[in-house]
Amino acid sequence: MAEKLERLPGFRDFYPEACDLRNYVFETWRKVAARHRFVEYEGPILEKTDLYRRKSGEEITEQLFHFVDKGEREVAMRPELTPTLARMAAARQRDYRKPMKWFSIGPFFRYERASKGRLREFYQCNCDILGETSDQADAELVAMAVEVMVEFGFREGDFVIRLSDRGAWMDWLTEQGISGDAALAVLQAVDKLGREEEAKTAEHLAGAGTNLEAVRAFMARGEEASPRAVAISRNLAARGLAGFLQWDLGIVRGLAYYTGTVFEVFDIGKGMRAVAGGGRYDNLVKLIGGVDLPACGFAMGDVVVGNFIEETPHAKARFEAWKSDFRAADAFVIVADEARRDEALAGTQSLRRAGLRVDSCLTPRAVGKQFAAAEEATARFAVIYGGSAGWISIKAMSDRSETLCETGALPATLLKLLGRSSEI
Amino acid sequence: MAEKLERLPGFRDFYPEACDLRNYVFETWRKVAARHRFVEYEGPILEKTDLYRRKSGEEITEQLFHFVDKGEREVAMRPELTPTLARMAAARQRDYRKPMKWFSIGPFFRYERASKGRLREFYQCNCDILGETSDQADAELVAMAVEVMVEFGFREGDFVIRLSDRGAWMDWLTEQGISGDAALAVLQAVDKLGREEEAKTAEHLAGAGTNLEAVRAFMARGEEASPRAVAISRNLAARGLAGFLQWDLGIVRGLAYYTGTVFEVFDIGKGMRAVAGGGRYDNLVKLIGGVDLPACGFAMGDVVVGNFIEETPHAKARFEAWKSDFRAADAFVIVADEARRDEALAGTQSLRRAGLRVDSCLTPRAVGKQFAAAEEATARFAVIYGGSAGWISIKAMSDRSETLCETGALPATLLKLLGRSSEI
Repeated sequence: MAEKLERLPGFRDFYPEACDLRNYVFETWRKVAARHRFVEYEGPILEKTDLYRRKSGEEITEQLFHFVDKGEREVAMRPELTPTLARMAAARQRDYRKPMKWFSIGPFFRYERASKGRLREFYQCNCDILGETSDQADAELVAMAVEVMVEFGFREGDFVIRLSDRGAWMDWLTEQGISGDAALAVLQAVDKLGREEEAKTAEHLAGAGTNLEAVRAFMARGEEASPRAVAISRNLAARGLAGFLQWDLGIVRGLAYYTGTVFEVFDIGKGMRAVAGGGRYDNLVKLIGGVDLPACGFAMGDVVVGNFIEETPHAKARFEAWKSDFRAADAFVIVADEARRDEALAGTQSLRRAGLRVDSCLTPRAVGKQFAAAEEATARFAVIYGGSAGWISIKAMSDRSETLCETGALPATLLKLLGRSSEI
Repeated sequence: MAEKLERLPGFRDFYPEACDLRNYVFETWRKVAARHRFVEYEGPILEKTDLYRRKSGEEITEQLFHFVDKGEREVAMRPELTPTLARMAAARQRDYRKPMKWFSIGPFFRYERASKGRLREFYQCNCDILGETSDQADAELVAMAVEVMVEFGFREGDFVIRLSDRGAWMDWLTEQGISGDAALAVLQAVDKLGREEEAKTAEHLAGAGTNLEAVRAFMARGEEASPRAVAISRNLAARGLAGFLQWDLGIVRGLAYYTGTVFEVFDIGKGMRAVAGGGRYDNLVKLIGGVDLPACGFAMGDVVVGNFIEETPHAKARFEAWKSDFRAADAFVIVADEARRDEALAGTQSLRRAGLRVDSCLTPRAVGKQFAAAEEATARFAVIYGGSAGWISIKAMSDRSETLCETGALPATLLKLLGRSSEI
């Protein structure tokens, strides 16, 4: 027997059960994006490696699946979408009214040590607003991130948006006479506060020309430190979303390219994980595409939010309800008299044409087995071809109540029983 | 200014207009698959290169994006899904009731010379039935392929299913004492009939131990040559789909692993292209996964069918109708009195929570500009915050007819005007 070929480590097989959760996450992202009037786009999964180098420097290649293709091009499987978005937006931004509210859902690849919530292939939803400098754009994004979580069934107390302002940090650092690499070192130390030993943090800060007391005094200023935070808080309060918001200058996010507000969707109490994150990056499109286009955005991955749904009973219940609705067959066609098989095929066809989800056994089976298959398919109705020629028996699977109809009246009768008008 | 970074040749940027068509194709595939009760699955985009070698031999690597990853593994971006399906099905087929009706939609990669309809990155819908030897499974697949085309708006005369039987060819070749490489050479010559010079074909056939007359005499037998064809034709005729079917022994398909029926969805009159293709491959799961699991399936790519839709007015009209419905905003919120901006944000939020697609200008604009933006968003209603406090004016964008409502009654009033009940 042939040696078994396994999948690669850090990659996933989505068997139907797992694919259901994936599709539920995608559908929810799409639904909420549409309500907020974001339009969908997508880029290539493979790009020139230089696209990522330009944004993040040579060290980015350490976590890339990258190689030289048959045309001698240095290429990489995309680790994130923002460079592609910047490339695409720079090339054609003139064709679109500003602000551009764009989103995308697709796979990404990072060569990392695999662990819970961290895989080598994962999906992300990326939402960005381009061509708008106002804080109102940042607020719209934060509101959308909240609504995605609410649509998943999460509530106040399950998660929080931690909002901060890297711009305020940069202003403060400038006041302190700290810039360049030293400024970045301070932000990296702040990013690790509470996770790194205090002595170590103090050392890093000292090396950058400041100290813990000064940093803590700045962070204690809270919202006062940022006029942006005040504007965004007011916007979100007007939407009734203040309860989801927490101002926290300790959030700086690792990436160097953020220029203004930054935020994270943070899971409270479960794994204390960042479910999503983003912020304003006004200089990146220029850096990558040579066109001045202010922007802000966030990304949410499927892995952490999927785990979070599975672990949160009221969110999971919502997914389960979606799944059982989605997975249920409207009808299961049963051939009780083999002489009527052709008729049954015609009936199956007419029901599917009418938009219904219809299953049947492909080959002759005892009626009892066909009913068992109908149960397995969680069918709402059994459509039975037996008894009198020209007549069909429709049985509700819940209570076995029966309706008889003539062959030609099948789709209309079943649609009525299902409480639906024709879906054609 | 930085040098521009272009996308790779043979790859696509899906700007929103192009992404609409892609999503329409995906949605149609999913909808028709659900009606036929296929369940969705997905595999990794990167697999071990050996998975493809096992199915197709070393020469497959000529058209692969393949490389050695940082863990010294030979890996390849998937050129097709069947090997992954075989691997996954072999590993867990015991967990699923047979027949397994599975489908998948995702991206694939082939390093080929790019041309119209042939790209290096493309999407495919793969539909397979596993664990069923009966021809009824083949017929179910063909019917589903027809229904996908019908759902796109294609009609009889636009396309045809060309059905053939490689099993019948193999039986005939065995009768003629032709087997192994010689048998494959005959099928390859048949595949090129009408495209290659007759003298050349005759030469290939002679080399394999037969001749054109014998081959033509076999092909003239038509459906008689295949009991499978008779059964499938009867099934499809019962469904009312006979008009889409054409029995054509000239269809053999290049791939060596087909064991029974093969078929193509063929575009008549436009580009005479194969829009989809498939057949029965009873030995492949065993070859790849070591488990005996008969199977049949087909794949449809997004590129050819997308072009076909664009070129066929009645199919294109269907897409356009879908698009304008999908792209229309239910409401556009207009702030006519800046003092009411917070109220307008609350209203926007309540409408989106009710499931509606709602847009607005993020920053203060003259009322005329806001109405222009509402037109641009093809909004059905404008929701205007001006005039009397506590009251909102809802204007139909089509005829500017006005409805006044109190703030708290906004979602209910608008849902009623849209003819919908709450979508929560």
